[in-house]
Amino acid sequence: MMTAPAQLAFDDAVALAGDLAAGRTSAVALTRAALERIAETNADWRIFITIAPETALAEAEASDARRAEGRTLGPLDGIPIAIKDNIDVAGMPTTVGTAAYRNRHPARDAAVIARLRDAGAVILGKLNLHEGALGATTDNPTYGRCENPRVPGSTPGGSSGGSGAAVAGALVAIALGTDTMGSVRIPAAYCGNWGLKPTKGLVGTSGLAYLSWTLDTIGPLANSPEDLALAIRAMAGPDSDDPRSVATPEGWDPTPTKTSLKGLVLGRPSVVDSVACEPEVRAAYDALLARAVAEGAIIKDVAIDGWDTGKARRAGLLISEAEAGSLLGADLDTLGDGFSDGFRRFLDYGRKAPGERIAAAYAALDRLGLAARQALDGVDALILPTAPQRAFAHGAPAPADQADFTALANIAGLPAIAFPLPGDPKPNSAQLVGRAFEEGKLLGIAKALFGLAP
Amino acid sequence: MMTAPAQLAFDDAVALAGDLAAGRTSAVALTRAALERIAETNADWRIFITIAPETALAEAEASDARRAEGRTLGPLDGIPIAIKDNIDVAGMPTTVGTAAYRNRHPARDAAVIARLRDAGAVILGKLNLHEGALGATTDNPTYGRCENPRVPGSTPGGSSGGSGAAVAGALVAIALGTDTMGSVRIPAAYCGNWGLKPTKGLVGTSGLAYLSWTLDTIGPLANSPEDLALAIRAMAGPDSDDPRSVATPEGWDPTPTKTSLKGLVLGRPSVVDSVACEPEVRAAYDALLARAVAEGAIIKDVAIDGWDTGKARRAGLLISEAEAGSLLGADLDTLGDGFSDGFRRFLDYGRKAPGERIAAAYAALDRLGLAARQALDGVDALILPTAPQRAFAHGAPAPADQADFTALANIAGLPAIAFPLPGDPKPNSAQLVGRAFEEGKLLGIAKALFGLAP
Repeated sequence: MMTAPAQLAFDDAVALAGDLAAGRTSAVALTRAALERIAETNADWRIFITIAPETALAEAEASDARRAEGRTLGPLDGIPIAIKDNIDVAGMPTTVGTAAYRNRHPARDAAVIARLRDAGAVILGKLNLHEGALGATTDNPTYGRCENPRVPGSTPGGSSGGSGAAVAGALVAIALGTDTMGSVRIPAAYCGNWGLKPTKGLVGTSGLAYLSWTLDTIGPLANSPEDLALAIRAMAGPDSDDPRSVATPEGWDPTPTKTSLKGLVLGRPSVVDSVACEPEVRAAYDALLARAVAEGAIIKDVAIDGWDTGKARRAGLLISEAEAGSLLGADLDTLGDGFSDGFRRFLDYGRKAPGERIAAAYAALDRLGLAARQALDGVDALILPTAPQRAFAHGAPAPADQADFTALANIAGLPAIAFPLPGDPKPNSAQLVGRAFEEGKLLGIAKALFGLAP
Repeated sequence: MMTAPAQLAFDDAVALAGDLAAGRTSAVALTRAALERIAETNADWRIFITIAPETALAEAEASDARRAEGRTLGPLDGIPIAIKDNIDVAGMPTTVGTAAYRNRHPARDAAVIARLRDAGAVILGKLNLHEGALGATTDNPTYGRCENPRVPGSTPGGSSGGSGAAVAGALVAIALGTDTMGSVRIPAAYCGNWGLKPTKGLVGTSGLAYLSWTLDTIGPLANSPEDLALAIRAMAGPDSDDPRSVATPEGWDPTPTKTSLKGLVLGRPSVVDSVACEPEVRAAYDALLARAVAEGAIIKDVAIDGWDTGKARRAGLLISEAEAGSLLGADLDTLGDGFSDGFRRFLDYGRKAPGERIAAAYAALDRLGLAARQALDGVDALILPTAPQRAFAHGAPAPADQADFTALANIAGLPAIAFPLPGDPKPNSAQLVGRAFEEGKLLGIAKALFGLAP
């Protein structure tokens, strides 16, 4: 088994951008290094489903040529990135992690991919995920059991497990994931990364193979708040083919705001006490709060009306079942064998669930979203553990409560960040949830909290 | 049969406000006059389900007392209004037009009623509607067949038929209706009134007995654009108990904007040619466009991607069935006899409809809403007939296409206005659909078009 931390090939993307600007490296050199490392590790780690060396090197050459001519597209120009395999990239299949779609070739890039190309990013390939983006172990029956490079022998989480693993394994500085009820933040937590689920509508989702178009959000995973800001700035913007896309607000800026903890008000939802957390998770969370208080932060207990984590999870799952069932259900008849039994049952359940339950689930999510937004009124951000547990061993049964702390932000359409907390040998993670479009403020708070020495 | 036009008891609310301010009349005098007229006509017209003389007169007396002390609450203070009987008014039952809820007494006012009380409006009582707000004839099996005072022997439309009839019959200057797929605008058209369906979220809906919380909107009916502006200004504002409520945008102003037709661009959706309209409706619409062109307006043909009026109507109906089914379905078991067979079937269908169809209907509405908002990009407003037909005789089968031109605005969350066009003996009506929160611009355009002599 390889272990990653001793073999980091990559700095943060912001540092790489500096190297490129100073001529200390080239996009081709970075891309070659990444491709070599992927080639060395993929048989063991199963992080990539598709590797695209030819197009990646051509993109890197084009980036270097632009730079030589003084026509650089910005700080992402020439930075290699990788994409969760439920987001369309022209020229590569979009498998959605299921055998059924092994040969599904999109006609064009997803809207967010087009934006990243416009910013000059080099696309290395497509990343492993939990089948159908439904589940949080990335133990994929078709594309392999994805390894957690930070915790050998353990799951990277999911559904964006390949995205968390790619960053943790230093294969890329930035990876794209998708988050329906926590699918960016859970792997970020298990792999010791930073992960951002942006405000609903900020990043267009056309060209994403939806699990739930109501809850799905595309977000980046990386090693620092600055890299998340770099990525989300390129990703954000209107998408004329996404009904939920909104115009980027005037003055929106994801740069982490310089933040003093003195007087900062962090809301501590009462559900933190009602979900049974792994003791280490709870201890890391409590220690973080204590350090924040020592720096002058104010912890305010908040009750979010009607937030029963189990009920909210089941309502979100039912919506996902109905929406995925309506989108993919017809494929059960023609491609049924290509889906695992579990995923097939999930789609089938959603197709047939009675209308009154579906409508009631939508209403429950609407209500909870309102309560969450109202709970933010008197605080700067909500603070929670990211997941109730740390990365667990491959093959262990997946806990039902993995998304209990993360689903709220999807339901409410709010931005949320997972950031690493000290933990040995398994990383811990804290989560902040903020007001709509306050990504910069949230990244600033996370950075200040991360910077507190334990 | 009584006919109204010769017996108007009421001027526009704006004129009444002037009379009150000048001391030419009092709130008590206006309220008494209205109550007398309601008492005289209700056996024939069946416009009111609940008449509340005692509370109305007490409110009027309080208004006059405020005025005497120089503490008037604004231009609505002392103006009698009436409320569709699916909106909660404390102290009166909310029957929703069905026998099942004959004794349903709300604990408090709906949010919009609280706002109208804050503005000093006097509430005369609750208005007849199509059973469950589902349907557009207001031929109510429990509370009587509501008459159209403007077209004797004909339906006032619906579901806010009592609201249209109350204004047409000069019982009030302003009535509140609700609009799920056209339920404010269709009675406005059939009764020769002005009707406004506001931007989604502008008027809070907590305390409304929802047919579809996704599509339902509360809006006023009146005799002029100025009265609609007076009403909506008081009605608009955040509702902390409505997940779809939005903050009133800075600078939002519903006052009809002074508008020149010269150079104004009106979008004419291609579906106008695909729906079979009554010849008089089409002739009135074509004549209006010709008059507008003669004044310098530009008519631009617009195709709204994917707008099949029949499919959109059926998707909206399915969502209403599922949402109403989830809300009221349980009452079928205990109050089943209180629902008509038709309404019971409707609820039952929604309870049981398969999840994949419900989810697909939500997605179809999302897509169409996006297309409608995009179609507004190059025009000042869309212009359409309000309904494909004029008021029709009681007992005639209700056409399936009554809401074919109106449902779009609900689906897209956009404001829409119905305003009267000349027609004898039956009024005609045109409809404008505008961008979100541009109520003032839309009312200004409608006023300019209305002012063109035929």
